[in-house]
Amino acid sequence: MLVLGVDPGTATTGYGVVRATRPGDATLVECGVIRTKARDALSSRLKEIHDGMEELIARHKPQVLSVEAVFYAKNVRTTVVLGHARGVILLAGEQHGLHIHEIPPAEIKKAVAGTGAATKEQVQFMLTRLLRLKSVPTPSDAADGVAAALAYCMGAHLARLSAASASIPPRTRNPLIGGRSR
Amino acid sequence: MLVLGVDPGTATTGYGVVRATRPGDATLVECGVIRTKARDALSSRLKEIHDGMEELIARHKPQVLSVEAVFYAKNVRTTVVLGHARGVILLAGEQHGLHIHEIPPAEIKKAVAGTGAATKEQVQFMLTRLLRLKSVPTPSDAADGVAAALAYCMGAHLARLSAASASIPPRTRNPLIGGRSR
Repeated sequence: MLVLGVDPGTATTGYGVVRATRPGDATLVECGVIRTKARDALSSRLKEIHDGMEELIARHKPQVLSVEAVFYAKNVRTTVVLGHARGVILLAGEQHGLHIHEIPPAEIKKAVAGTGAATKEQVQFMLTRLLRLKSVPTPSDAADGVAAALAYCMGAHLARLSAASASIPPRTRNPLIGGRSR
Repeated sequence: MLVLGVDPGTATTGYGVVRATRPGDATLVECGVIRTKARDALSSRLKEIHDGMEELIARHKPQVLSVEAVFYAKNVRTTVVLGHARGVILLAGEQHGLHIHEIPPAEIKKAVAGTGAATKEQVQFMLTRLLRLKSVPTPSDAADGVAAALAYCMGAHLARLSAASASIPPRTRNPLIGGRSR
């Protein structure tokens, strides 16, 4: 299974292509960034990001697109513009029939470094070990893209599924393991 | 000149196609909405919006895309998701070589109803008069799309250009009309 992980950004979109060989094991195929120029119009920068995504999808033919989900911000304007970039990234995945997985930053950290409170350095350290790399992928946006892909491979989606089943209302739980019956 | 005006929304994107016959005069060609289902995944809804835009552009071949610009919100999450929709709308315009004009709500109101503080009803009333329609376009999202197109035709872009030239640094102004020379 080939996973394209993306850390969206209007100026710099980081990406990583990771191959999941067997559960919990993965190798890095490629990583890098799609850069756009601040002096260009937003619509033109969005097209560059979309073109970059299409080129990556055509070249690697991944089955999964794992995208960092960000829905909060200190600066609302920045986050809204980032929403535009995420929009064309998700669109590219959908247009090419990829399975799309949106993953919050804390879940990426948890899947890669074991805790949602991990620092950027801890995530990069674990990412380098898990993928048996000689050094941390650069620039850091590329490493963030790799982390998004690796988090999917490391079963973040399974963790989410089990979290979903844990939130089933009490009456449907097995009373033998603590659920309340009515 | 044919202008496609769009009021972006994740659930309902309103649009209006307006033909500018001569300065200050315009006629409505078509208006309507692109609707998406709340139960569908965001990526799938974005593709529907992008497909809808491509269909409109292919059918009418407009030269200009005028899109309502919103960069603030009471609810940050809603605005960020709206940013995704705007992203694929701007992308569609860019992919088909349209001139793209992003226009803030207050400028739309000013261009159509004479003041940035106009109510929705005042804008709809003026829009109906200016386009010589028998009734207000419905639903209101479609009317908002028409307003974005009409605002472009009514010279909002010219107003913006003159505002831009007014902000030229004093030393480049003609000293005979009040500019400071150094």
